[in-house]
Amino acid sequence: MKVAIVGAGQLGRMLAQAAYPLGIATEFYDKSADTPGGQVAPIVTGEFDDLAKLTALAGRADVVTFDWENVPVASLEAMRRATPVCPDPGVLAVAQDRLLEKTLFRDLGIPTPPFAPVDLRSDLAAAIRRIGRPGILKTRRFGYDGKGQARIRTARDDDRAWAALGGEPLIYEGFVDFTREVSLIAARSRRGERAYYPLTENVHEHGILASSSSPCRSPRLQAAAERHVGAILERFGYTGVLAVEFFVAKGALIANEMAPRVHNSGHWTIEGAVTSQFENHLRAILGLPLGSTAARGHAGMVNFVGRVPRLERALAEPGLHLHLYGKREARPGRKLGHATVVASTAKARDRALGRLLRLR
Amino acid sequence: MKVAIVGAGQLGRMLAQAAYPLGIATEFYDKSADTPGGQVAPIVTGEFDDLAKLTALAGRADVVTFDWENVPVASLEAMRRATPVCPDPGVLAVAQDRLLEKTLFRDLGIPTPPFAPVDLRSDLAAAIRRIGRPGILKTRRFGYDGKGQARIRTARDDDRAWAALGGEPLIYEGFVDFTREVSLIAARSRRGERAYYPLTENVHEHGILASSSSPCRSPRLQAAAERHVGAILERFGYTGVLAVEFFVAKGALIANEMAPRVHNSGHWTIEGAVTSQFENHLRAILGLPLGSTAARGHAGMVNFVGRVPRLERALAEPGLHLHLYGKREARPGRKLGHATVVASTAKARDRALGRLLRLR
Repeated sequence: MKVAIVGAGQLGRMLAQAAYPLGIATEFYDKSADTPGGQVAPIVTGEFDDLAKLTALAGRADVVTFDWENVPVASLEAMRRATPVCPDPGVLAVAQDRLLEKTLFRDLGIPTPPFAPVDLRSDLAAAIRRIGRPGILKTRRFGYDGKGQARIRTARDDDRAWAALGGEPLIYEGFVDFTREVSLIAARSRRGERAYYPLTENVHEHGILASSSSPCRSPRLQAAAERHVGAILERFGYTGVLAVEFFVAKGALIANEMAPRVHNSGHWTIEGAVTSQFENHLRAILGLPLGSTAARGHAGMVNFVGRVPRLERALAEPGLHLHLYGKREARPGRKLGHATVVASTAKARDRALGRLLRLR
Repeated sequence: MKVAIVGAGQLGRMLAQAAYPLGIATEFYDKSADTPGGQVAPIVTGEFDDLAKLTALAGRADVVTFDWENVPVASLEAMRRATPVCPDPGVLAVAQDRLLEKTLFRDLGIPTPPFAPVDLRSDLAAAIRRIGRPGILKTRRFGYDGKGQARIRTARDDDRAWAALGGEPLIYEGFVDFTREVSLIAARSRRGERAYYPLTENVHEHGILASSSSPCRSPRLQAAAERHVGAILERFGYTGVLAVEFFVAKGALIANEMAPRVHNSGHWTIEGAVTSQFENHLRAILGLPLGSTAARGHAGMVNFVGRVPRLERALAEPGLHLHLYGKREARPGRKLGHATVVASTAKARDRALGRLLRLR
């Protein structure tokens, strides 16, 4: 069996690493061969709109998936004429556009921050009148890791935010005064089998995920998150892993965004769950039985952003599981690796997580 | 950092899989590219006595290791002129010869079965007079998975055994009436740091490892095994993972054989220990801090020999971790993969192991 993976970043790399033990071959597609994925499995290089190359790759595979949200939907639609693409490109089209995404949440009865589309300067004024300040003006498309966002705290910020982002299709969202952020990683297989990991609590710094802890035990929030994410899975007859990020405000979940793929906040599942999100994504898109999503102890994960610790120093940390992505250039804000610890209690996990944070 | 691995079987494949997350590159050497290792990492093909090719490979690496016991020692000696070879080829020379191996055990005070070298038919008669029957006549070299062995139960077997094996350098060993077989996997780093995994209990079928369970809890046997294996590690200033198999007879350990490499009876460490034997081998030979060898629950491992179960069926087994080796040809007696389960109690592990055995 062969899986074609469009995009050869760290998510693809970890998918390929999960595929080898199952005897599943992978083949990547990306602009450059010396990518995290291309270092560990065969890769075809080309532009993301080269339909001839992409379609040829699809023809060699049993199923196509992607590790990157900004793959052109038209490219995946073309590949689908040759081979099933999972998750469905239609879901990706929604996830690529914050307005469609928030509208989907609302239609499914999933709480979201108040939001309004903003195309013109006058739309922004109207949105602020209705929703109020503080809020965040965001590009509808191509935002990730905090990029393409401007906060609006007071009236003085309105023009500055518009100057920074105006001209593109935008969305204005009311600011959510959250106490914490959590995410739910779910999988749905081609046969309709569903599985949910325990909720993960996430801490962001400068808009980039800094650390995750799981399980984040709250039977009430877990049930609510599964209900919300289950509604999305069923709406699309979804296939693969889906991640949804929520704010927790006044003890309730408010959906922030979804990612139709394996997700940074699920990296702890490699050592901290019986079956990793990467293996379950492969099982799901190939129509194989899903593996157990049960936690193995209490896991903590720390991202290495912009720089990685010396190998010698990192590996001296008791119980640390290191994952480097093989990126040649260490740029600020770039995710270069992560480390996970698993402890038998939440308290021991938090202590170990503190040590990992100091490694950065 | 790059590790050159001579031999690209399943052991090398799992070494390469452990190397990727640490950001360590690997390069294999074997006769064929379409090998378990060659499918997951770059490979150079050639004969095992092609010193020019082997030395060129060594020159590109920071350290050389091997995944196969029958690599010619002279080839590794040649590579060592370019780059450190770990473990030392001198240990391999001992492990390749059952007589040198048993003599080493005896010299270090490690109990062994009674043994005698057999070169001539008259040596066999003398050995049987001294040691008695039952016993096993074995080739000194190139035996594995029960190959190159003939049992001698009664006098009628003497000629048959001689006819089968006579002409090669042999060893006659007294039969050990053991109650069970165990193995100890140990690691010693270039800096002299040592670590021992919990003892593993092994079941063989037709001379091939069928299943392993760990931890096999006996503080007394664990201490004795660590003392014996520690003596071997220190004798050689050993670097890397070393496996030693023991019989347990009348409650005491009797050393059977050693393997200067990662070992089939340590495959459970991938999911069942904090750090796998593969990662610890890499850490040891690169002079990095060793990782924890503590068990995570109770692990059971089953080998798939000659055939593998259908993927669909294997993955339906709750908690099963599958490892297929990518071998194209399924020959009888050939190890094609393994599966591991980890449970919270030994009893639950034994139940799960029973289900895995029925998958074969």
